[in-house]
Amino acid sequence: MPASFPTDSSQNSQSQRILWLLEELGIEYKVSHYARDKGHRAPPEMKEVQELGKSPILVTGDGRAITESTTIATYLIKTYDTGGKLASEDWVKDDMLTSFAGATLGPLAAVELLFDLASNQTPWPAVYIMRGIWKVVKKQFSEAEFKKDLAYLEGELGENEWFNGKNLGKCDIILSYPIDMMAQRKWVDFESEYPRIAAWRKRIEERDAWKRGLEKGNGYSLLFGS
Amino acid sequence: MPASFPTDSSQNSQSQRILWLLEELGIEYKVSHYARDKGHRAPPEMKEVQELGKSPILVTGDGRAITESTTIATYLIKTYDTGGKLASEDWVKDDMLTSFAGATLGPLAAVELLFDLASNQTPWPAVYIMRGIWKVVKKQFSEAEFKKDLAYLEGELGENEWFNGKNLGKCDIILSYPIDMMAQRKWVDFESEYPRIAAWRKRIEERDAWKRGLEKGNGYSLLFGS
Repeated sequence: MPASFPTDSSQNSQSQRILWLLEELGIEYKVSHYARDKGHRAPPEMKEVQELGKSPILVTGDGRAITESTTIATYLIKTYDTGGKLASEDWVKDDMLTSFAGATLGPLAAVELLFDLASNQTPWPAVYIMRGIWKVVKKQFSEAEFKKDLAYLEGELGENEWFNGKNLGKCDIILSYPIDMMAQRKWVDFESEYPRIAAWRKRIEERDAWKRGLEKGNGYSLLFGS
Repeated sequence: MPASFPTDSSQNSQSQRILWLLEELGIEYKVSHYARDKGHRAPPEMKEVQELGKSPILVTGDGRAITESTTIATYLIKTYDTGGKLASEDWVKDDMLTSFAGATLGPLAAVELLFDLASNQTPWPAVYIMRGIWKVVKKQFSEAEFKKDLAYLEGELGENEWFNGKNLGKCDIILSYPIDMMAQRKWVDFESEYPRIAAWRKRIEERDAWKRGLEKGNGYSLLFGS
Protein backbone atom coordinates (compact mmCIF):
# COMPACT_ATOMS: atom_id res chain seq x y z
CA MET A 1 0.00 0.00 0.00
CA PRO A 2 2.12 2.92 -1.22
CA ALA A 3 1.46 6.40 0.13
CA SER A 4 1.42 9.56 -1.90
CA PHE A 5 3.11 12.66 -0.54
CA PRO A 6 2.21 16.01 -2.09
CA THR A 7 4.61 18.72 -0.95
CA ASP A 8 5.43 22.22 -2.05
CA SER A 9 8.77 22.66 -3.71
CA SER A 10 10.01 25.55 -1.60
CA GLN A 11 12.99 25.02 0.61
CA ASN A 12 11.24 26.09 3.81
CA SER A 13 8.87 23.18 3.96
CA GLN A 14 8.30 21.10 7.06
CA SER A 15 8.28 18.04 4.83
CA GLN A 16 11.86 16.87 5.39
CA ARG A 17 11.08 15.20 8.71
CA ILE A 18 8.25 13.21 7.10
CA LEU A 19 10.42 12.24 4.12
CA TRP A 20 13.03 11.12 6.67
CA LEU A 21 10.45 8.96 8.46
CA LEU A 22 9.17 7.47 5.20
CA GLU A 23 12.77 6.52 4.40
CA GLU A 24 13.48 5.13 7.89
CA LEU A 25 10.48 2.83 7.55
CA GLY A 26 11.27 1.86 3.95
CA ILE A 27 7.81 2.87 2.77
CA GLU A 28 7.09 3.04 -0.92
CA TYR A 29 5.82 6.53 -1.71
CA LYS A 30 5.50 9.10 -4.43
CA VAL A 31 6.36 12.78 -3.87
CA SER A 32 4.36 15.44 -5.72
CA HIS A 33 6.03 18.83 -5.73
CA TYR A 34 4.03 22.05 -5.86
CA ALA A 35 5.65 25.45 -6.42
CA ARG A 36 4.94 28.04 -3.75
CA ASP A 37 3.55 31.37 -4.84
CA LYS A 38 5.36 34.65 -4.34
CA GLY A 39 4.03 35.23 -0.85
CA HIS A 40 5.79 32.09 0.38
CA ARG A 41 2.41 30.43 0.73
CA ALA A 42 1.49 27.00 -0.52
CA PRO A 43 -0.05 27.18 -3.99
CA PRO A 44 -3.82 27.00 -4.66
CA GLU A 45 -3.46 23.60 -6.36
CA MET A 46 -2.55 22.06 -2.99
CA LYS A 47 -6.02 22.99 -1.77
CA GLU A 48 -7.39 20.42 -4.18
CA VAL A 49 -5.55 17.76 -2.18
CA GLN A 50 -6.74 19.12 1.20
CA GLU A 51 -8.54 22.39 1.91
CA LEU A 52 -5.89 23.86 4.24
CA GLY A 53 -3.51 23.63 1.29
CA LYS A 54 -0.50 23.43 3.57
CA SER A 55 2.49 21.15 3.26
CA PRO A 56 3.01 18.42 4.37
CA ILE A 57 0.00 16.35 3.44
CA LEU A 58 0.06 12.57 3.30
CA VAL A 59 -2.37 10.82 1.01
CA THR A 60 -2.75 7.24 2.18
CA GLY A 61 -3.00 4.22 -0.07
CA ASP A 62 -6.78 4.31 0.21
CA GLY A 63 -6.99 8.01 -0.65
CA ARG A 64 -7.29 9.75 2.71
CA ALA A 65 -5.51 13.11 3.07
CA ILE A 66 -3.80 13.48 6.45
CA THR A 67 -2.41 16.81 7.67
CA GLU A 68 -0.46 17.74 10.83
CA SER A 69 3.08 16.34 10.89
CA THR A 70 2.56 14.67 14.26
CA THR A 71 -0.53 12.83 13.04
CA ILE A 72 1.20 11.81 9.82
CA ALA A 73 4.10 10.43 11.87
CA THR A 74 1.76 8.57 14.22
CA TYR A 75 -0.14 7.13 11.25
CA LEU A 76 3.02 5.98 9.47
CA ILE A 77 4.49 4.36 12.58
CA LYS A 78 1.19 2.66 13.50
CA THR A 79 0.65 1.40 9.97
CA TYR A 80 4.12 0.51 8.74
CA ASP A 81 6.42 0.08 11.73
CA THR A 82 5.40 -3.49 12.43
CA GLY A 83 8.93 -4.33 13.54
CA GLY A 84 8.92 -1.61 16.22
CA LYS A 85 11.99 0.23 14.86
CA LEU A 86 10.66 3.52 16.24
CA ALA A 87 8.67 2.10 19.14
CA SER A 88 8.31 4.41 22.17
CA GLU A 89 10.61 3.31 24.98
CA ASP A 90 8.45 5.33 27.41
CA TRP A 91 5.23 6.46 25.75
CA VAL A 92 4.58 9.34 28.16
CA LYS A 93 8.01 10.82 27.49
CA ASP A 94 7.75 10.26 23.73
CA ASP A 95 4.33 11.93 23.69
CA MET A 96 5.38 14.83 25.94
CA LEU A 97 8.39 15.63 23.77
CA THR A 98 6.37 15.29 20.57
CA SER A 99 3.73 17.68 21.89
CA PHE A 100 6.44 19.97 23.26
CA ALA A 101 7.90 20.39 19.75
CA GLY A 102 4.61 21.62 18.30
CA ALA A 103 2.64 23.18 21.13
CA THR A 104 5.48 24.73 23.18
CA LEU A 105 8.39 25.33 20.79
CA GLY A 106 6.02 26.06 17.89
CA PRO A 107 4.44 29.27 19.27
CA LEU A 108 7.82 30.47 20.55
CA ALA A 109 9.43 29.89 17.14
CA ALA A 110 6.48 31.58 15.38
CA VAL A 111 6.98 34.81 17.33
CA GLU A 112 10.75 34.71 16.75
CA LEU A 113 10.30 33.98 13.05
CA LEU A 114 7.85 36.85 12.62
CA PHE A 115 10.39 39.36 13.93
CA ASP A 116 13.27 37.69 12.13
CA LEU A 117 11.42 38.00 8.81
CA ALA A 118 10.14 41.50 9.61
CA SER A 119 13.62 42.70 10.50
CA ASN A 120 14.87 41.57 7.13
CA GLN A 121 11.97 42.84 5.09
CA THR A 122 11.02 46.14 6.70
CA PRO A 123 12.34 49.06 4.62
CA TRP A 124 14.76 51.58 6.10
CA PRO A 125 14.33 53.47 8.46
CA ALA A 126 11.35 51.58 9.95
CA VAL A 127 13.60 48.55 10.25
CA TYR A 128 15.21 50.15 13.31
CA ILE A 129 11.85 50.33 15.06
CA MET A 130 11.18 46.72 14.19
CA ARG A 131 14.58 45.60 15.48
CA GLY A 132 13.99 47.62 18.63
CA ILE A 133 10.68 45.90 19.23
CA TRP A 134 12.27 42.51 18.62
CA LYS A 135 14.89 43.34 21.24
CA VAL A 136 12.17 44.10 23.79
CA VAL A 137 10.27 40.92 22.94
CA LYS A 138 13.48 38.92 23.31
CA LYS A 139 14.32 40.50 26.63
CA GLN A 140 10.87 40.25 28.14
CA PHE A 141 9.81 36.96 26.73
CA SER A 142 11.52 34.78 24.15
CA GLU A 143 15.14 34.70 25.35
CA ALA A 144 14.25 33.29 28.78
CA GLU A 145 11.74 30.85 27.24
CA PHE A 146 14.25 29.50 24.71
CA LYS A 147 16.82 29.00 27.47
CA LYS A 148 14.40 27.20 29.78
CA ASP A 149 13.00 25.02 27.02
CA LEU A 150 16.38 24.05 25.57
CA ALA A 151 17.93 23.36 28.98
CA TYR A 152 14.98 21.03 29.58
CA LEU A 153 15.56 19.27 26.24
CA GLU A 154 19.31 18.97 26.88
CA GLY A 155 18.42 17.27 30.17
CA GLU A 156 15.79 14.99 28.60
CA LEU A 157 18.38 13.81 26.08
CA GLY A 158 20.90 13.20 28.86
CA GLU A 159 23.35 10.43 28.03
CA ASN A 160 21.06 8.86 25.44
CA GLU A 161 21.64 9.03 21.72
CA TRP A 162 18.00 9.83 21.06
CA PHE A 163 15.21 11.67 22.85
CA ASN A 164 13.23 8.43 22.67
CA GLY A 165 16.08 6.63 24.48
CA LYS A 166 18.36 3.99 22.95
CA ASN A 167 16.53 4.10 19.63
CA LEU A 168 15.16 6.79 17.42
CA GLY A 169 11.50 7.61 18.10
CA LYS A 170 8.64 9.78 16.95
CA CYS A 171 9.73 12.64 19.23
CA ASP A 172 13.15 12.75 17.52
CA ILE A 173 11.49 13.01 14.11
CA ILE A 174 9.14 15.79 15.24
CA LEU A 175 11.74 17.76 17.24
CA SER A 176 14.12 17.91 14.27
CA TYR A 177 12.21 20.70 12.53
CA PRO A 178 11.95 23.36 15.26
CA ILE A 179 15.51 22.67 16.39
CA ASP A 180 16.89 22.89 12.85
CA MET A 181 14.99 26.18 12.45
CA MET A 182 16.69 27.59 15.58
CA ALA A 183 20.11 26.36 14.48
CA GLN A 184 19.95 27.37 10.82
CA ARG A 185 18.59 30.83 11.57
CA LYS A 186 21.27 31.25 14.27
CA TRP A 187 18.81 31.99 17.06
CA VAL A 188 20.71 29.48 19.16
CA ASP A 189 24.32 28.27 19.06
CA PHE A 190 23.85 24.62 19.94
CA GLU A 191 27.56 23.71 19.66
CA SER A 192 28.54 25.98 22.52
CA GLU A 193 25.37 26.06 24.61
CA TYR A 194 23.67 22.69 24.19
CA PRO A 195 26.37 20.21 23.11
CA ARG A 196 24.15 17.16 23.56
CA ILE A 197 21.51 18.55 21.22
CA ALA A 198 24.31 19.54 18.79
CA ALA A 199 25.60 15.94 18.81
CA TRP A 200 22.03 14.65 18.32
CA ARG A 201 21.69 16.89 15.24
CA LYS A 202 24.90 15.41 13.82
CA ARG A 203 23.64 11.88 14.42
CA ILE A 204 20.51 12.70 12.44
CA GLU A 205 22.43 14.22 9.54
CA GLU A 206 24.61 11.13 9.29
CA ARG A 207 21.70 8.75 8.86
CA ASP A 208 21.19 7.33 5.39
CA ALA A 209 17.43 7.74 5.65
CA TRP A 210 17.86 11.46 6.43
CA LYS A 211 20.11 11.85 3.38
CA ARG A 212 17.73 9.94 1.13
CA GLY A 213 14.89 12.18 2.37
CA LEU A 214 16.91 15.26 1.41
CA GLU A 215 17.42 13.88 -2.10
CA LYS A 216 13.71 13.20 -2.57
CA GLY A 217 12.79 16.63 -1.27
CA ASN A 218 13.84 19.89 -2.73
CA GLY A 219 16.48 21.26 -0.40
CA TYR A 220 16.19 22.00 3.28
CA SER A 221 17.33 25.53 3.94
CA LEU A 222 15.27 27.18 6.66
CA LEU A 223 16.80 30.57 5.84
CA PHE A 224 13.87 31.76 3.75
CA GLY A 225 13.15 35.51 3.82
CA SER A 226 16.69 36.42 4.89
CA MET B 1 -5.11 6.07 42.39
CA PRO B 2 -5.89 9.78 42.82
CA ALA B 3 -3.95 12.31 40.77
CA SER B 4 -2.58 15.57 42.06
CA PHE B 5 -2.92 18.69 39.94
CA PRO B 6 -0.69 21.66 40.75
CA THR B 7 -1.86 24.74 38.90
CA ASP B 8 -1.18 28.43 39.13
CA SER B 9 -4.02 30.52 40.46
CA SER B 10 -4.10 33.12 37.74
CA GLN B 11 -7.15 33.36 35.57
CA ASN B 12 -5.30 32.93 32.31
CA SER B 13 -4.26 29.38 32.92
CA GLN B 14 -4.68 26.60 30.41
CA SER B 15 -5.77 24.37 33.28
CA GLN B 16 -9.54 24.63 32.84
CA ARG B 17 -9.65 22.11 30.03
CA ILE B 18 -7.78 19.55 32.16
CA LEU B 19 -10.02 20.22 35.19
CA TRP B 20 -12.96 19.70 32.83
CA LEU B 21 -11.55 16.35 31.67
CA LEU B 22 -10.82 15.22 35.25
CA GLU B 23 -14.46 16.00 36.07
CA GLU B 24 -15.82 14.27 32.94
CA LEU B 25 -13.99 11.11 33.93
CA GLY B 26 -14.94 11.37 37.61
CA ILE B 27 -11.31 11.13 38.69
CA GLU B 28 -10.41 11.81 42.30
CA TYR B 29 -7.80 14.59 42.35
CA LYS B 30 -6.36 17.36 44.42
CA VAL B 31 -5.70 20.85 43.01
CA SER B 32 -2.72 22.84 44.31
CA HIS B 33 -2.91 26.52 43.48
CA TYR B 34 0.21 28.63 42.95
CA ALA B 35 0.08 32.40 42.63
CA ARG B 36 1.68 33.85 39.51
CA ASP B 37 4.35 36.46 39.90
CA LYS B 38 4.00 40.00 38.58
CA GLY B 39 5.30 39.19 35.11
CA HIS B 40 2.35 36.83 34.53
CA ARG B 41 4.75 33.93 34.73
CA ALA B 42 4.26 30.82 36.78
CA PRO B 43 5.93 31.13 40.19
CA PRO B 44 9.34 29.62 41.07
CA GLU B 45 7.72 27.13 43.46
CA MET B 46 6.12 25.39 40.50
CA LYS B 47 9.60 24.55 39.25
CA GLU B 48 9.95 22.24 42.21
CA VAL B 49 7.11 20.17 40.79
CA GLN B 50 8.59 20.14 37.28
CA GLU B 51 11.50 22.18 35.92
CA LEU B 52 9.56 24.01 33.21
CA GLY B 53 7.41 25.42 36.02
CA LYS B 54 4.49 25.92 33.70
CA SER B 55 0.85 25.17 34.36
CA PRO B 56 -0.76 22.71 33.88
CA ILE B 57 1.22 19.87 35.40
CA LEU B 58 -0.34 16.57 36.37
CA VAL B 59 1.30 14.53 39.11
CA THR B 60 0.16 10.94 38.77
CA GLY B 61 -0.74 8.67 41.65
CA ASP B 62 2.76 7.18 41.53
CA GLY B 63 4.46 10.57 41.55
CA ARG B 64 5.29 11.27 37.93
CA ALA B 65 4.98 14.88 36.75
CA ILE B 66 3.40 15.13 33.30
CA THR B 67 3.41 18.38 31.30
CA GLU B 68 1.84 19.27 27.94
CA SER B 69 -1.96 19.43 28.01
CA THR B 70 -2.31 16.99 25.14
CA THR B 71 -0.15 14.38 26.86
CA ILE B 72 -2.00 14.89 30.16
CA ALA B 73 -5.30 14.36 28.33
CA THR B 74 -4.01 11.26 26.56
CA TYR B 75 -2.71 9.87 29.86
CA LEU B 76 -5.99 10.50 31.72
CA ILE B 77 -8.12 8.97 28.97
CA LYS B 78 -5.82 5.93 28.61
CA THR B 79 -5.66 5.38 32.36
CA TYR B 80 -9.13 6.24 33.59
CA ASP B 81 -11.55 6.12 30.66
CA THR B 82 -12.08 2.37 30.81
CA GLY B 83 -15.72 2.80 29.75
CA GLY B 84 -14.74 4.62 26.55
CA LYS B 85 -16.75 7.77 27.32
CA LEU B 86 -14.28 9.86 25.30
CA ALA B 87 -13.17 7.15 22.88
CA SER B 88 -12.05 8.39 19.44
CA GLU B 89 -14.72 7.71 16.83
CA ASP B 90 -12.05 8.10 14.13
CA TRP B 91 -8.58 8.19 15.63
CA VAL B 92 -6.94 9.94 12.69
CA LYS B 93 -9.47 12.78 12.84
CA ASP B 94 -9.27 13.02 16.65
CA ASP B 95 -5.47 13.14 16.48
CA MET B 96 -5.37 15.64 13.59
CA LEU B 97 -7.71 18.06 15.38
CA THR B 98 -5.85 17.66 18.67
CA SER B 99 -2.54 18.42 16.98
CA PHE B 100 -4.16 21.24 15.00
CA ALA B 101 -5.18 22.99 18.26
CA GLY B 102 -1.60 23.09 19.55
CA ALA B 103 0.68 23.06 16.54
CA THR B 104 -1.39 25.10 14.06
CA LEU B 105 -3.71 27.35 16.10
CA GLY B 106 -1.10 27.70 18.89
CA PRO B 107 1.56 29.60 16.90
CA LEU B 108 -1.11 31.74 15.23
CA ALA B 109 -2.65 32.63 18.60
CA ALA B 110 0.80 33.34 20.08
CA VAL B 111 1.54 35.98 17.45
CA GLU B 112 -1.93 37.51 17.84
CA LEU B 113 -1.63 37.53 21.62
CA LEU B 114 1.77 39.19 21.52
CA PHE B 115 0.40 42.14 19.57
CA ASP B 116 -2.83 42.21 21.55
CA LEU B 117 -0.86 42.50 24.80
CA ALA B 118 1.69 44.91 23.32
CA SER B 119 -1.06 47.18 21.99
CA ASN B 120 -2.51 47.42 25.48
CA GLN B 121 0.76 47.85 27.33
CA THR B 122 2.89 50.02 25.06
CA PRO B 123 2.97 53.62 26.36
CA TRP B 124 1.70 56.48 24.25
CA PRO B 125 2.77 57.47 21.56
CA ALA B 126 4.66 54.25 20.68
CA VAL B 127 1.37 52.40 20.95
CA TYR B 128 0.40 53.80 17.53
CA ILE B 129 3.45 52.24 15.95
CA MET B 130 2.63 48.93 17.64
CA ARG B 131 -0.99 49.02 16.47
CA GLY B 132 0.21 49.89 12.98
CA ILE B 133 2.51 46.88 12.94
CA TRP B 134 -0.28 44.65 14.20
CA LYS B 135 -2.47 45.86 11.35
CA VAL B 136 0.20 44.86 8.83
CA VAL B 137 0.69 41.46 10.45
CA LYS B 138 -3.08 40.87 10.38
CA LYS B 139 -3.35 41.89 6.76
CA GLN B 140 -0.35 39.95 5.50
CA PHE B 141 -0.65 36.90 7.68
CA SER B 142 -2.96 36.25 10.58
CA GLU B 143 -6.35 37.35 9.26
CA ALA B 144 -6.28 34.97 6.29
CA GLU B 145 -4.88 32.16 8.45
CA PHE B 146 -7.60 32.51 11.09
CA LYS B 147 -10.27 32.47 8.40
CA LYS B 148 -8.89 29.41 6.68
CA ASP B 149 -8.34 27.51 9.91
CA LEU B 150 -11.76 28.32 11.37
CA ALA B 151 -13.61 27.56 8.14
CA TYR B 152 -11.86 24.18 8.21
CA LEU B 153 -12.93 23.59 11.82
CA GLU B 154 -16.51 24.67 11.09
CA GLY B 155 -16.55 22.06 8.31
CA GLU B 156 -14.97 19.36 10.47
CA LEU B 157 -17.70 19.89 13.09
CA GLY B 158 -20.36 19.72 10.38
CA GLU B 159 -23.69 18.43 11.67
CA ASN B 160 -22.10 16.69 14.64
CA GLU B 161 -22.39 17.91 18.21
CA TRP B 162 -18.71 17.32 18.86
CA PHE B 163 -15.51 17.45 16.85
CA ASN B 164 -14.98 13.81 17.83
CA GLY B 165 -18.38 12.95 16.33
CA LYS B 166 -21.46 11.85 18.29
CA ASN B 167 -19.61 11.96 21.58
CA LEU B 168 -17.15 14.29 23.22
CA GLY B 169 -13.51 13.41 22.55
CA LYS B 170 -9.96 14.47 23.31
CA CYS B 171 -9.93 16.93 20.41
CA ASP B 172 -12.93 18.77 21.89
CA ILE B 173 -11.15 19.10 25.23
CA ILE B 174 -7.94 20.39 23.62
CA LEU B 175 -9.63 22.73 21.11
CA SER B 176 -11.62 24.48 23.86
CA TYR B 177 -8.67 26.59 25.02
CA PRO B 178 -7.49 28.25 21.78
CA ILE B 179 -11.09 28.79 20.65
CA ASP B 180 -12.09 30.34 24.00
CA MET B 181 -9.04 32.59 23.75
CA MET B 182 -10.15 33.83 20.31
CA ALA B 183 -13.74 34.33 21.48
CA GLN B 184 -13.01 35.98 24.83
CA ARG B 185 -10.42 38.36 23.38
CA LYS B 186 -12.84 39.19 20.54
CA TRP B 187 -10.42 38.26 17.78
CA VAL B 188 -13.27 36.30 16.20
CA ASP B 189 -17.05 36.69 16.40
CA PHE B 190 -18.11 33.06 16.38
CA GLU B 191 -21.86 33.79 16.67
CA SER B 192 -21.99 35.57 13.35
CA GLU B 193 -19.14 33.90 11.45
CA TYR B 194 -18.92 30.32 12.68
CA PRO B 195 -22.32 29.43 14.14
CA ARG B 196 -21.53 25.72 14.49
CA ILE B 197 -18.46 26.44 16.59
CA ALA B 198 -20.50 28.97 18.61
CA ALA B 199 -23.13 26.29 19.32
CA TRP B 200 -20.36 23.84 20.27
CA ARG B 201 -19.01 26.37 22.79
CA LYS B 202 -22.49 26.65 24.34
CA ARG B 203 -22.77 22.88 24.60
CA ILE B 204 -19.48 22.79 26.49
CA GLU B 205 -20.50 25.55 28.89
CA GLU B 206 -23.73 23.73 29.70
CA ARG B 207 -21.96 20.54 30.79
CA ASP B 208 -21.91 19.86 34.52
CA ALA B 209 -18.31 18.67 34.36
CA TRP B 210 -17.26 21.99 32.75
CA LYS B 211 -19.02 23.91 35.51
CA ARG B 212 -17.49 21.77 38.25
CA GLY B 213 -14.06 22.35 36.69
CA LEU B 214 -14.64 26.11 36.83
CA GLU B 215 -15.48 25.87 40.53
CA LYS B 216 -12.34 23.88 41.31
CA GLY B 217 -10.19 26.28 39.30
CA ASN B 218 -9.77 29.92 39.95
CA GLY B 219 -11.76 31.66 37.25
CA TYR B 220 -11.35 31.40 33.52
CA SER B 221 -11.03 34.84 32.04
CA LEU B 222 -8.61 34.89 29.12
CA LEU B 223 -8.62 38.68 29.07
CA PHE B 224 -5.36 39.06 31.00
CA GLY B 225 -3.21 42.05 30.10
CA SER B 226 -6.13 44.05 28.69
